[in-house]
Amino acid sequence: MRQRNVKNKKDIINNSKYIILNPEEYIGNWKKLFNNFNPIYIEIGMGKGDFILENAINYPNINFIGIEKYDSIIALAIKKIEKIELNNLKLIRMDALNIDNVFKKEIDKLYLNFSDPWPKERHAKRRLTSNVFLEKYDNIFVNNKVIEMKTDNQGLFEYSLISFNDYGYHIKEISLDLHHSNKENNIMTEYEKKFSSKNNRIYYVKVEKNQ
Amino acid sequence: MRQRNVKNKKDIINNSKYIILNPEEYIGNWKKLFNNFNPIYIEIGMGKGDFILENAINYPNINFIGIEKYDSIIALAIKKIEKIELNNLKLIRMDALNIDNVFKKEIDKLYLNFSDPWPKERHAKRRLTSNVFLEKYDNIFVNNKVIEMKTDNQGLFEYSLISFNDYGYHIKEISLDLHHSNKENNIMTEYEKKFSSKNNRIYYVKVEKNQ
Repeated sequence: MRQRNVKNKKDIINNSKYIILNPEEYIGNWKKLFNNFNPIYIEIGMGKGDFILENAINYPNINFIGIEKYDSIIALAIKKIEKIELNNLKLIRMDALNIDNVFKKEIDKLYLNFSDPWPKERHAKRRLTSNVFLEKYDNIFVNNKVIEMKTDNQGLFEYSLISFNDYGYHIKEISLDLHHSNKENNIMTEYEKKFSSKNNRIYYVKVEKNQ
Repeated sequence: MRQRNVKNKKDIINNSKYIILNPEEYIGNWKKLFNNFNPIYIEIGMGKGDFILENAINYPNINFIGIEKYDSIIALAIKKIEKIELNNLKLIRMDALNIDNVFKKEIDKLYLNFSDPWPKERHAKRRLTSNVFLEKYDNIFVNNKVIEMKTDNQGLFEYSLISFNDYGYHIKEISLDLHHSNKENNIMTEYEKKFSSKNNRIYYVKVEKNQ
Protein backbone atom coordinates (compact mmCIF):
# COMPACT_ATOMS: atom_id res chain seq x y z
CA MET A 1 0.00 0.00 0.00
CA ARG A 2 1.26 3.47 -0.85
CA GLN A 3 2.18 5.32 2.29
CA ARG A 4 1.28 8.85 3.18
CA ASN A 5 3.49 10.21 5.95
CA VAL A 6 1.57 10.74 9.18
CA LYS A 7 2.83 13.39 11.57
CA ASN A 8 3.46 12.21 15.13
CA LYS A 9 3.03 8.62 14.01
CA LYS A 10 5.46 7.37 16.67
CA ASP A 11 3.54 9.20 19.38
CA ILE A 12 0.23 7.89 18.09
CA ILE A 13 1.56 4.32 18.16
CA ASN A 14 3.28 4.59 21.55
CA ASN A 15 0.25 6.07 23.27
CA SER A 16 -2.56 3.88 21.85
CA LYS A 17 -4.43 1.62 24.24
CA TYR A 18 -4.86 -0.83 21.36
CA ILE A 19 -1.17 -1.25 20.55
CA ILE A 20 0.95 -4.00 22.07
CA LEU A 21 4.46 -2.54 22.01
CA ASN A 22 6.46 -5.62 23.01
CA PRO A 23 4.44 -8.45 21.53
CA GLU A 24 7.19 -11.06 22.03
CA GLU A 25 6.51 -10.84 25.78
CA TYR A 26 3.05 -12.33 25.26
CA ILE A 27 4.09 -15.41 23.28
CA GLY A 28 1.96 -18.33 24.44
CA ASN A 29 -0.12 -16.03 26.65
CA TRP A 30 -2.39 -14.04 24.38
CA LYS A 31 -5.52 -15.59 25.83
CA LYS A 32 -4.44 -14.23 29.22
CA LEU A 33 -4.04 -10.77 27.74
CA PHE A 34 -7.62 -10.91 26.46
CA ASN A 35 -8.67 -12.46 29.77
CA ASN A 36 -10.89 -15.09 28.16
CA PHE A 37 -10.72 -18.34 26.19
CA ASN A 38 -12.27 -17.06 22.98
CA PRO A 39 -10.65 -17.92 19.65
CA ILE A 40 -8.00 -15.55 18.33
CA TYR A 41 -8.00 -14.44 14.68
CA ILE A 42 -5.15 -12.38 13.25
CA GLU A 43 -4.81 -10.29 10.11
CA ILE A 44 -1.35 -9.75 8.65
CA GLY A 45 -1.24 -6.50 6.70
CA MET A 46 -4.29 -4.87 8.28
CA GLY A 47 -3.72 -1.57 6.44
CA LYS A 48 -5.96 1.16 7.81
CA GLY A 49 -7.90 -1.40 9.80
CA ASP A 50 -11.42 -1.35 8.33
CA PHE A 51 -11.60 -5.15 8.05
CA ILE A 52 -10.32 -6.02 11.52
CA LEU A 53 -12.35 -3.25 13.16
CA GLU A 54 -15.64 -4.31 11.58
CA ASN A 55 -14.89 -7.93 12.48
CA ALA A 56 -14.18 -6.99 16.10
CA ILE A 57 -17.47 -5.08 16.30
CA ASN A 58 -19.52 -7.84 14.62
CA TYR A 59 -17.98 -10.78 16.47
CA PRO A 60 -17.50 -9.85 20.16
CA ASN A 61 -16.82 -13.48 21.11
CA ILE A 62 -13.72 -13.65 18.94
CA ASN A 63 -10.46 -11.84 19.76
CA PHE A 64 -8.81 -10.05 16.86
CA ILE A 65 -5.23 -8.93 16.42
CA GLY A 66 -4.26 -6.68 13.51
CA ILE A 67 -0.66 -6.63 12.33
CA GLU A 68 0.82 -3.93 10.12
CA LYS A 69 4.41 -3.19 9.16
CA TYR A 70 4.26 0.52 8.38
CA ASP A 71 4.12 3.20 11.09
CA SER A 72 2.15 5.68 9.01
CA ILE A 73 -0.52 3.17 8.05
CA ILE A 74 -1.04 1.72 11.51
CA ALA A 75 -1.18 5.28 12.89
CA LEU A 76 -4.12 5.95 10.56
CA ALA A 77 -5.80 2.76 11.76
CA ILE A 78 -5.28 3.78 15.39
CA LYS A 79 -6.84 7.19 14.84
CA LYS A 80 -9.98 5.47 13.57
CA ILE A 81 -10.10 2.69 16.15
CA GLU A 82 -9.29 4.83 19.21
CA LYS A 83 -12.74 6.39 18.98
CA ILE A 84 -14.36 3.04 19.75
CA GLU A 85 -14.26 0.92 22.94
CA LEU A 86 -13.44 -2.71 22.18
CA ASN A 87 -12.03 -5.36 24.49
CA ASN A 88 -11.52 -7.93 21.74
CA LEU A 89 -9.07 -6.05 19.51
CA LYS A 90 -5.33 -5.46 19.70
CA LEU A 91 -2.85 -4.09 17.16
CA ILE A 92 0.83 -4.84 16.58
CA ARG A 93 3.28 -2.88 14.48
CA MET A 94 5.76 -5.42 13.19
CA ASP A 95 7.11 -7.28 10.20
CA ALA A 96 5.34 -10.58 9.47
CA LEU A 97 8.75 -12.28 9.42
CA ASN A 98 8.66 -11.95 13.22
CA ILE A 99 5.29 -13.72 13.58
CA ASP A 100 6.62 -16.95 15.08
CA ASN A 101 8.38 -15.02 17.84
CA VAL A 102 5.06 -13.51 18.88
CA PHE A 103 2.54 -16.37 18.72
CA LYS A 104 2.83 -20.01 19.67
CA LYS A 105 -0.04 -22.52 19.39
CA GLU A 106 -2.74 -19.94 20.10
CA ILE A 107 -4.16 -18.67 16.79
CA ASP A 108 -7.36 -20.06 15.26
CA LYS A 109 -7.45 -18.23 11.95
CA LEU A 110 -5.17 -16.05 9.81
CA TYR A 111 -6.46 -13.45 7.36
CA LEU A 112 -4.33 -12.29 4.43
CA ASN A 113 -6.11 -9.47 2.63
CA PHE A 114 -4.70 -7.80 -0.49
CA SER A 115 -1.13 -8.66 0.42
CA ASP A 116 1.75 -7.21 -1.56
CA PRO A 117 1.92 -9.40 -4.72
CA TRP A 118 5.72 -9.05 -5.16
CA PRO A 119 5.23 -9.79 -8.86
CA LYS A 120 8.88 -10.37 -9.75
CA GLU A 121 9.87 -14.01 -9.61
CA ARG A 122 13.05 -13.23 -7.67
CA HIS A 123 10.88 -11.73 -4.90
CA ALA A 124 8.53 -14.74 -4.68
CA LYS A 125 9.78 -15.70 -1.21
CA ARG A 126 8.57 -12.34 0.11
CA ARG A 127 4.94 -13.14 -0.71
CA LEU A 128 2.98 -13.85 2.48
CA THR A 129 1.89 -17.19 1.01
CA SER A 130 5.40 -18.46 0.14
CA ASN A 131 6.74 -21.46 1.98
CA VAL A 132 9.00 -19.10 3.97
CA PHE A 133 5.88 -17.71 5.63
CA LEU A 134 3.83 -20.93 5.63
CA GLU A 135 6.61 -22.48 7.71
CA LYS A 136 6.41 -19.62 10.19
CA TYR A 137 2.61 -19.88 10.41
CA ASP A 138 2.87 -23.60 11.25
CA ASN A 139 3.78 -22.87 14.85
CA ILE A 140 1.26 -20.15 15.58
CA PHE A 141 -1.94 -22.20 15.15
CA VAL A 142 -3.53 -23.99 18.08
CA ASN A 143 -5.58 -26.59 16.18
CA ASN A 144 -6.23 -26.86 12.46
CA LYS A 145 -4.43 -24.23 10.43
CA VAL A 146 -6.99 -21.99 8.72
CA ILE A 147 -6.09 -19.18 6.32
CA GLU A 148 -8.56 -16.93 4.51
CA MET A 149 -7.15 -14.89 1.67
CA LYS A 150 -8.56 -12.14 -0.55
CA THR A 151 -6.76 -10.42 -3.39
CA ASP A 152 -7.42 -8.69 -6.68
CA ASN A 153 -4.07 -9.89 -8.01
CA GLN A 154 -4.50 -12.88 -10.33
CA GLY A 155 -0.81 -13.82 -10.30
CA LEU A 156 -0.58 -13.79 -6.51
CA PHE A 157 -3.77 -15.85 -6.26
CA GLU A 158 -2.57 -18.49 -8.72
CA TYR A 159 0.81 -18.67 -6.98
CA SER A 160 -0.84 -18.95 -3.57
CA LEU A 161 -3.16 -21.82 -4.55
CA ILE A 162 -0.17 -23.87 -5.69
CA SER A 163 1.92 -22.85 -2.68
CA PHE A 164 -0.89 -23.77 -0.26
CA ASN A 165 -1.32 -27.16 -1.91
CA ASP A 166 2.42 -27.85 -1.98
CA TYR A 167 2.51 -27.16 1.75
CA GLY A 168 -0.41 -29.47 2.60
CA TYR A 169 -3.24 -26.93 2.78
CA HIS A 170 -6.52 -27.93 1.11
CA ILE A 171 -9.05 -25.59 -0.46
CA LYS A 172 -12.28 -25.51 1.52
CA GLU A 173 -14.02 -22.52 -0.09
CA ILE A 174 -13.14 -20.54 -3.17
CA SER A 175 -14.60 -17.75 -5.25
CA LEU A 176 -13.06 -16.40 -8.43
CA ASP A 177 -15.40 -13.40 -8.33
CA LEU A 178 -16.26 -12.76 -4.70
CA HIS A 179 -18.44 -9.72 -5.22
CA HIS A 180 -20.65 -11.59 -7.67
CA SER A 181 -20.84 -14.76 -5.59
CA ASN A 182 -23.35 -15.82 -2.98
CA LYS A 183 -20.87 -15.63 -0.10
CA GLU A 184 -22.54 -13.92 2.83
CA ASN A 185 -21.20 -11.50 5.41
CA ASN A 186 -18.14 -10.45 3.44
CA ILE A 187 -16.40 -7.67 5.37
CA MET A 188 -14.50 -5.39 3.03
CA THR A 189 -11.07 -3.83 3.51
CA GLU A 190 -10.69 -0.15 2.59
CA TYR A 191 -8.73 -1.20 -0.49
CA GLU A 192 -11.47 -3.67 -1.44
CA LYS A 193 -14.17 -0.99 -1.19
CA LYS A 194 -12.22 1.30 -3.48
CA PHE A 195 -11.25 -1.47 -5.85
CA SER A 196 -14.67 -3.05 -6.03
CA SER A 197 -16.25 0.12 -7.32
CA LYS A 198 -14.18 -0.35 -10.46
CA ASN A 199 -15.98 -3.68 -10.95
CA ASN A 200 -12.78 -5.71 -11.09
CA ARG A 201 -12.61 -9.24 -9.71
CA ILE A 202 -11.82 -10.09 -6.11
CA TYR A 203 -10.48 -13.60 -5.55
CA TYR A 204 -11.19 -15.39 -2.28
CA VAL A 205 -10.01 -18.69 -0.84
CA LYS A 206 -10.23 -20.44 2.51
CA VAL A 207 -7.66 -23.17 3.03
CA GLU A 208 -7.09 -25.60 5.88
CA LYS A 209 -4.35 -27.92 6.98
CA ASN A 210 -4.71 -30.50 9.69
CA GLN A 211 -2.24 -30.48 12.55
CA MET B 1 -22.62 -29.57 -26.23
CA ARG B 2 -25.73 -28.98 -28.32
CA GLN B 3 -26.23 -31.83 -30.72
CA ARG B 4 -27.02 -31.58 -34.36
CA ASN B 5 -28.37 -34.86 -35.76
CA VAL B 6 -25.93 -36.47 -38.19
CA LYS B 7 -27.34 -38.77 -40.87
CA ASN B 8 -25.84 -42.25 -41.00
CA LYS B 9 -24.07 -41.61 -37.73
CA LYS B 10 -24.25 -45.28 -36.76
CA ASP B 11 -22.69 -46.29 -40.08
CA ILE B 12 -19.99 -43.68 -39.74
CA ILE B 13 -19.12 -44.95 -36.26
CA ASN B 14 -19.25 -48.65 -37.12
CA ASN B 15 -17.06 -48.28 -40.18
CA SER B 16 -14.34 -45.97 -38.87
CA LYS B 17 -10.81 -47.32 -38.59
CA TYR B 18 -10.33 -45.03 -35.60
CA ILE B 19 -13.24 -46.34 -33.54
CA ILE B 20 -12.83 -49.11 -30.99
CA LEU B 21 -16.29 -50.72 -30.88
CA ASN B 22 -15.82 -53.05 -27.91
CA PRO B 23 -13.38 -51.16 -25.72
CA GLU B 24 -13.94 -53.41 -22.67
CA GLU B 25 -12.09 -56.15 -24.53
CA TYR B 26 -8.88 -54.16 -24.40
CA ILE B 27 -8.84 -53.47 -20.66
CA GLY B 28 -5.25 -53.77 -19.44
CA ASN B 29 -3.99 -54.20 -23.02
CA TRP B 30 -4.19 -50.81 -24.68
CA LYS B 31 -0.43 -50.62 -25.12
CA LYS B 32 -0.65 -53.83 -27.13
CA LEU B 33 -3.32 -52.29 -29.34
CA PHE B 34 -1.02 -49.36 -30.11
CA ASN B 35 1.86 -51.82 -30.47
CA ASN B 36 4.30 -49.68 -28.48
CA PHE B 37 5.13 -48.60 -24.92
CA ASN B 38 4.40 -44.92 -25.37
CA PRO B 39 2.32 -43.10 -22.74
CA ILE B 40 -1.44 -43.02 -23.24
CA TYR B 41 -3.43 -39.81 -22.77
CA ILE B 42 -7.23 -39.78 -22.88
CA GLU B 43 -9.78 -37.03 -23.30
CA ILE B 44 -13.25 -37.53 -21.88
CA GLY B 45 -15.78 -35.48 -23.81
CA MET B 46 -13.71 -34.95 -26.94
CA GLY B 47 -16.55 -33.23 -28.80
CA LYS B 48 -15.74 -32.80 -32.46
CA GLY B 49 -12.15 -33.84 -31.83
CA ASP B 50 -10.06 -30.75 -32.65
CA PHE B 51 -8.07 -30.99 -29.41
CA ILE B 52 -7.25 -34.70 -29.52
CA LEU B 53 -6.52 -34.60 -33.25
CA GLU B 54 -4.08 -31.70 -33.01
CA ASN B 55 -2.41 -33.38 -30.02
CA ALA B 56 -2.04 -36.66 -31.93
CA ILE B 57 -0.45 -34.82 -34.86
CA ASN B 58 1.90 -32.75 -32.68
CA TYR B 59 2.98 -35.54 -30.33
CA PRO B 60 3.54 -38.74 -32.35
CA ASN B 61 5.28 -40.42 -29.39
CA ILE B 62 2.16 -40.26 -27.24
CA ASN B 63 -0.94 -42.39 -27.84
CA PHE B 64 -4.26 -40.55 -27.61
CA ILE B 65 -7.74 -41.89 -27.02
CA GLY B 66 -10.76 -39.63 -27.42
CA ILE B 67 -13.98 -40.51 -25.65
CA GLU B 68 -17.37 -39.04 -26.51
CA LYS B 69 -20.86 -39.99 -25.40
CA TYR B 70 -22.97 -38.72 -28.28
CA ASP B 71 -23.23 -40.51 -31.63
CA SER B 72 -23.80 -37.37 -33.67
CA ILE B 73 -20.83 -35.55 -32.19
CA ILE B 74 -18.34 -38.39 -32.50
CA ALA B 75 -19.57 -38.93 -36.08
CA LEU B 76 -18.57 -35.36 -36.88
CA ALA B 77 -15.17 -35.95 -35.29
CA ILE B 78 -14.70 -39.12 -37.34
CA LYS B 79 -15.50 -37.34 -40.60
CA LYS B 80 -12.70 -34.89 -39.83
CA ILE B 81 -10.16 -37.40 -38.54
CA GLU B 82 -10.72 -40.09 -41.21
CA LYS B 83 -8.98 -37.85 -43.74
CA ILE B 84 -5.70 -38.15 -41.82
CA GLU B 85 -3.46 -41.18 -41.24
CA LEU B 86 -2.49 -41.50 -37.59
CA ASN B 87 -1.30 -44.57 -35.70
CA ASN B 88 -1.41 -42.92 -32.29
CA LEU B 89 -5.11 -42.05 -32.09
CA LYS B 90 -8.20 -44.09 -31.25
CA LEU B 91 -11.77 -43.06 -30.48
CA ILE B 92 -14.41 -44.59 -28.23
CA ARG B 93 -18.12 -43.82 -28.13
CA MET B 94 -19.17 -44.42 -24.57
CA ASP B 95 -20.39 -42.87 -21.33
CA ALA B 96 -17.62 -41.84 -18.94
CA LEU B 97 -19.36 -43.83 -16.20
CA ASN B 98 -18.00 -46.92 -17.98
CA ILE B 99 -14.38 -45.72 -17.90
CA ASP B 100 -13.13 -48.14 -15.25
CA ASN B 101 -14.40 -51.09 -17.26
CA VAL B 102 -12.26 -50.00 -20.20
CA PHE B 103 -8.91 -48.98 -18.69
CA LYS B 104 -6.87 -50.47 -15.86
CA LYS B 105 -3.48 -49.09 -14.76
CA GLU B 106 -2.50 -47.90 -18.22
CA ILE B 107 -3.35 -44.20 -18.57
CA ASP B 108 -0.78 -41.44 -18.04
CA LYS B 109 -2.95 -38.35 -18.32
CA LEU B 110 -6.61 -37.43 -18.46
CA TYR B 111 -7.94 -34.31 -20.21
CA LEU B 112 -11.29 -32.80 -19.25
CA ASN B 113 -12.10 -29.94 -21.62
CA PHE B 114 -15.23 -27.83 -21.27
CA SER B 115 -17.16 -30.58 -19.54
CA ASP B 116 -20.87 -30.19 -18.90
CA PRO B 117 -21.09 -27.96 -15.78
CA TRP B 118 -24.32 -29.53 -14.48
CA PRO B 119 -24.99 -26.27 -12.62
CA LYS B 120 -27.80 -27.52 -10.39
CA GLU B 121 -26.62 -28.68 -7.00
CA ARG B 122 -28.69 -31.85 -7.21
CA HIS B 123 -26.76 -32.84 -10.35
CA ALA B 124 -23.31 -32.24 -8.80
CA LYS B 125 -22.43 -35.93 -8.85
CA ARG B 126 -22.76 -35.94 -12.64
CA ARG B 127 -19.89 -33.46 -13.03
CA LEU B 128 -16.80 -35.22 -14.40
CA THR B 129 -14.79 -33.90 -11.43
CA SER B 130 -17.15 -35.18 -8.71
CA ASN B 131 -15.89 -37.87 -6.37
CA VAL B 132 -18.09 -40.38 -8.27
CA PHE B 133 -15.80 -39.95 -11.27
CA LEU B 134 -12.56 -39.34 -9.34
CA GLU B 135 -13.08 -42.78 -7.77
CA LYS B 136 -13.45 -44.32 -11.21
CA TYR B 137 -10.34 -42.54 -12.51
CA ASP B 138 -8.28 -43.95 -9.61
CA ASN B 139 -7.96 -47.34 -11.26
CA ILE B 140 -7.18 -46.24 -14.79
CA PHE B 141 -3.84 -44.49 -14.11
CA VAL B 142 -0.57 -46.40 -14.34
CA ASN B 143 1.62 -44.11 -12.22
CA ASN B 144 0.83 -40.69 -10.80
CA LYS B 145 -2.68 -39.54 -11.55
CA VAL B 146 -2.57 -36.43 -13.75
CA ILE B 147 -5.63 -34.48 -14.84
CA GLU B 148 -5.62 -31.35 -16.98
CA MET B 149 -8.86 -29.39 -17.07
CA LYS B 150 -10.06 -26.40 -19.07
CA THR B 151 -13.41 -24.69 -18.75
CA ASP B 152 -15.08 -21.34 -19.19
CA ASN B 153 -17.52 -22.15 -16.39
CA GLN B 154 -16.52 -20.41 -13.15
CA GLY B 155 -18.82 -22.50 -10.96
CA LEU B 156 -17.57 -25.80 -12.36
CA PHE B 157 -13.97 -24.65 -11.94
CA GLU B 158 -14.45 -23.59 -8.30
CA TYR B 159 -16.27 -26.85 -7.55
CA SER B 160 -13.56 -28.89 -9.25
CA LEU B 161 -10.66 -27.29 -7.34
CA ILE B 162 -12.32 -28.18 -4.03
CA SER B 163 -13.30 -31.64 -5.25
CA PHE B 164 -9.75 -32.36 -6.49
CA ASN B 165 -8.26 -31.24 -3.15
CA ASP B 166 -10.78 -33.24 -1.13
CA TYR B 167 -9.80 -36.31 -3.12
CA GLY B 168 -6.05 -35.84 -2.61
CA TYR B 169 -5.13 -34.15 -5.88
CA HIS B 170 -2.75 -31.18 -5.66
CA ILE B 171 -2.65 -28.20 -7.98
CA LYS B 172 0.54 -28.16 -10.05
CA GLU B 173 -0.31 -25.46 -12.61
CA ILE B 174 -3.20 -23.03 -12.75
CA SER B 175 -4.34 -20.11 -14.85
CA LEU B 176 -7.42 -18.06 -14.18
CA ASP B 177 -7.18 -16.49 -17.64
CA LEU B 178 -5.46 -18.98 -19.91
CA HIS B 179 -5.58 -16.95 -23.09
CA HIS B 180 -3.86 -14.02 -21.42
CA SER B 181 -1.27 -16.14 -19.63
CA ASN B 182 2.20 -17.16 -20.68
CA LYS B 183 1.32 -20.85 -21.02
CA GLU B 184 2.82 -22.18 -24.21
CA ASN B 185 1.53 -24.70 -26.72
CA ASN B 186 -2.10 -24.49 -25.68
CA ILE B 187 -4.14 -26.59 -28.08
CA MET B 188 -7.69 -25.30 -28.38
CA THR B 189 -10.91 -27.26 -28.58
CA GLU B 190 -13.47 -26.14 -31.16
CA TYR B 191 -15.59 -24.73 -28.36
CA GLU B 192 -12.60 -22.87 -26.97
CA LYS B 193 -11.82 -21.27 -30.34
CA LYS B 194 -15.39 -20.04 -30.63
CA PHE B 195 -15.61 -18.95 -27.01
CA SER B 196 -12.24 -17.27 -26.93
CA SER B 197 -13.17 -14.88 -29.70
CA LYS B 198 -15.72 -13.39 -27.30
CA ASN B 199 -12.79 -12.55 -25.01
CA ASN B 200 -14.23 -14.37 -22.02
CA ARG B 201 -12.01 -16.16 -19.55
CA ILE B 202 -10.77 -19.71 -19.90
CA TYR B 203 -9.75 -21.42 -16.66
CA TYR B 204 -7.03 -24.05 -16.68
CA VAL B 205 -5.66 -26.35 -14.01
CA LYS B 206 -3.29 -29.30 -13.91
CA VAL B 207 -3.63 -31.48 -10.82
CA GLU B 208 -1.70 -34.53 -9.66
CA LYS B 209 -2.18 -37.23 -7.09
CA ASN B 210 0.50 -39.69 -6.09
CA GLN B 211 -0.30 -43.36 -6.28
